Amino acid sequence: MQLLHTTDEDFAKKFDRIVRDRRESDVQVGRDVATIINEVRERGDEALVDYTARFDGHGLGEDRDWQISAEECRAAHEALDPALRDALELAAVRIRAYHEGQLPADRDYTDEIGMRLGARWSAVDAAGLYVPGGRAAYPSSLLMNAIPAKVAGVERLVVTTPTPKGEVNPLVLAAAHIAGVDEIWRVGGAQAIAALAHGTKRIAKVDVIAGPGNAWVAEAKRQLYGVVGIDMVAGPSEILVIADQDNDPEWIAADLLSQAEHDPTSQSILITDSGSLARQVEDAVDLALMKLPTAKTAQASWDAHGLIVVVDSLDQAPALSDRLAAEHVELMVDDPQALFDRLRHAGSVFLGRHTPEAVGDYIAGPNHVLPTGRRARFASGLSVLDFMKRTSFIDASKAALAAIGPAAVRLAEAEGLPAHALSISTRLK
Amino acid sequence: MQLLHTTDEDFAKKFDRIVRDRRESDVQVGRDVATIINEVRERGDEALVDYTARFDGHGLGEDRDWQISAEECRAAHEALDPALRDALELAAVRIRAYHEGQLPADRDYTDEIGMRLGARWSAVDAAGLYVPGGRAAYPSSLLMNAIPAKVAGVERLVVTTPTPKGEVNPLVLAAAHIAGVDEIWRVGGAQAIAALAHGTKRIAKVDVIAGPGNAWVAEAKRQLYGVVGIDMVAGPSEILVIADQDNDPEWIAADLLSQAEHDPTSQSILITDSGSLARQVEDAVDLALMKLPTAKTAQASWDAHGLIVVVDSLDQAPALSDRLAAEHVELMVDDPQALFDRLRHAGSVFLGRHTPEAVGDYIAGPNHVLPTGRRARFASGLSVLDFMKRTSFIDASKAALAAIGPAAVRLAEAEGLPAHALSISTRLK
Repeated sequence: MQLLHTTDEDFAKKFDRIVRDRRESDVQVGRDVATIINEVRERGDEALVDYTARFDGHGLGEDRDWQISAEECRAAHEALDPALRDALELAAVRIRAYHEGQLPADRDYTDEIGMRLGARWSAVDAAGLYVPGGRAAYPSSLLMNAIPAKVAGVERLVVTTPTPKGEVNPLVLAAAHIAGVDEIWRVGGAQAIAALAHGTKRIAKVDVIAGPGNAWVAEAKRQLYGVVGIDMVAGPSEILVIADQDNDPEWIAADLLSQAEHDPTSQSILITDSGSLARQVEDAVDLALMKLPTAKTAQASWDAHGLIVVVDSLDQAPALSDRLAAEHVELMVDDPQALFDRLRHAGSVFLGRHTPEAVGDYIAGPNHVLPTGRRARFASGLSVLDFMKRTSFIDASKAALAAIGPAAVRLAEAEGLPAHALSISTRLK
Repeated sequence: MQLLHTTDEDFAKKFDRIVRDRRESDVQVGRDVATIINEVRERGDEALVDYTARFDGHGLGEDRDWQISAEECRAAHEALDPALRDALELAAVRIRAYHEGQLPADRDYTDEIGMRLGARWSAVDAAGLYVPGGRAAYPSSLLMNAIPAKVAGVERLVVTTPTPKGEVNPLVLAAAHIAGVDEIWRVGGAQAIAALAHGTKRIAKVDVIAGPGNAWVAEAKRQLYGVVGIDMVAGPSEILVIADQDNDPEWIAADLLSQAEHDPTSQSILITDSGSLARQVEDAVDLALMKLPTAKTAQASWDAHGLIVVVDSLDQAPALSDRLAAEHVELMVDDPQALFDRLRHAGSVFLGRHTPEAVGDYIAGPNHVLPTGRRARFASGLSVLDFMKRTSFIDASKAALAAIGPAAVRLAEAEGLPAHALSISTRLK
């Protein structure tokens, strides 16, 4: 953990270094992934059989080896502890309600020259969701990715997930049942992304691929971007807590650690105007780490990337926060709205002392798939728009074309595109 | 040109081959582009000087060699032929009006448990636009890319453009003046994209890069996607005309050629239920090609990729059109709305006989930067949203957290994330 004060002589330089630090492992997987994609494209299901045997120790033979049935998902849902099932269903209801409010409105109007203009939104036909296997298989993540697709109106929602040695996570199956996933394939890694993008005999191709994954999955999505749409390039996640002195240090410590426990590359940052709170939080983190079952990961993250910045005044916080463009920003102050009004770049903002990030991770409603690694400068969280596209339209009357056609002819001629000009002028004769 | 009839024995197979044909030159530029990006990242402006001398024959020495000033743009605008200037300005006014209607609404509401939720849109700080040099330097393209950025509220709008041997296109400078571009740098190719994404001493980095370019530019954008936002992966463009028998074959021929004259990889397709119209259009294309100054390119495109499909009934057209997911679709029939209602995948649709695609390319208002190469299945045309991002927010009262917090604690525990659970439970004590 690094402790900085804005009055430190070299603060600007040190803060700049933190902003630039990508925290991303530059694993050289590009060539391996290109090979896998090519194999799947050429050999289809056979390549999937080979890779799944090699990487997951799972044999794809019979139909039931390939897919997890809707019946299995329903059974997993029914077998859940009722309190946990209620919690999952409450989360689904709230996520659905929030995302229904994102559905975009079509446009259709006639302007002053009598030209009808507009745009119409529609869902993609099919979407693929990657769900990691093993430790990172989170039912909350399935809900957050699947529900926006279904709210958007996607008719065919396909999950691919590795099932190492055949093992599945019943919580994820239950979430798939709740979200209304249409197909689940027992295939993982770059080979799953390749199958979703190009299609095989068994797995029909999709139009958009979303969902988190390891470096191979992320690179496969990047390489296939353009063949299909993808949600985003994800990186290590981060939390930034902006807090005044009137806070319980244990609350802040828990919030910082909730990010740190995800991964050693996660980053937890506190900006405060109170030197004494800074020290108390530091102690509270150390204390909490002694009892935390995920302490090994959380400690590694906190040691390598943890940061506390003591500012003279919280007035300085928005500018620092915008440079970090953090995935999650908590505003633990009396008037969080005033600070929020001054923020420009953040994935999601948590206002007030009773809004820990974790409530947004699970159940508040907004999506927890958010831009990481300073990408909130230009990217947004996952939404129904990621599963939709817009078709613009133009309907010109003869009079409307007569009104503006001659100007278009002039522009086409100036650009050296005579057939463009002709297509208008021949109608103006 | 290929002529198919849906009753041909092998129609399905042949049509399938056309749908799958990517028409994209698989130039292997990946490694070259990676080298250029790396050089610019490490050597900054020096690398730009070297590449610009080598590729553009332009020396970057003095400040005035690097940038084109606002004064030069204003002068180019003033020196324009007044009729052409009026045409450019009319186009700008109409494009601005259409895109202002795209500005998204923020959300801010309190739900039934007293939890405040919402989302706030904001513009990126800085955007870069690539403008090709030479023949493909279109003022219309500058307007279509720059105006949405300015309407979105982007404060710093940076153009990079190669100026081979120092040469500039005065029409493009005039368009930059109209659109309110803030900086223009005389740098092109992958090196320009690298400079925009990573920044150099002279060129401050941007958050989003838009604009068309050659294979090197496109590959650089693809490689830097994630470091910055990008507009889309563009490919060769296409037009699909759906027409009944009551059409002037010369109009349709001109429309098909307006796409074909762009590039030999362009594709022009007619679907009609009239065999006689099909023959007439074929003849009209041949006749028009004899007089067209751009006949060499248009002929190459029409020969390689031109297609006429004769259907038994226009009822069959929407399904075929959706498989092609064309960038531009013209509906030259009496009741275009009925056909439009049945289309799912298209970049932009032109309704009725008096709406040639070219009116949309220049002046109607909607954007002419559209998804190509079947990408309308999942992608949309350029819009103000490409220059904005959304920050979601959550504001939980103590009571709201008490209402749903316990369910979130349960989910966090089930996912094996105890610090997540702790961050909520410690507030519920």
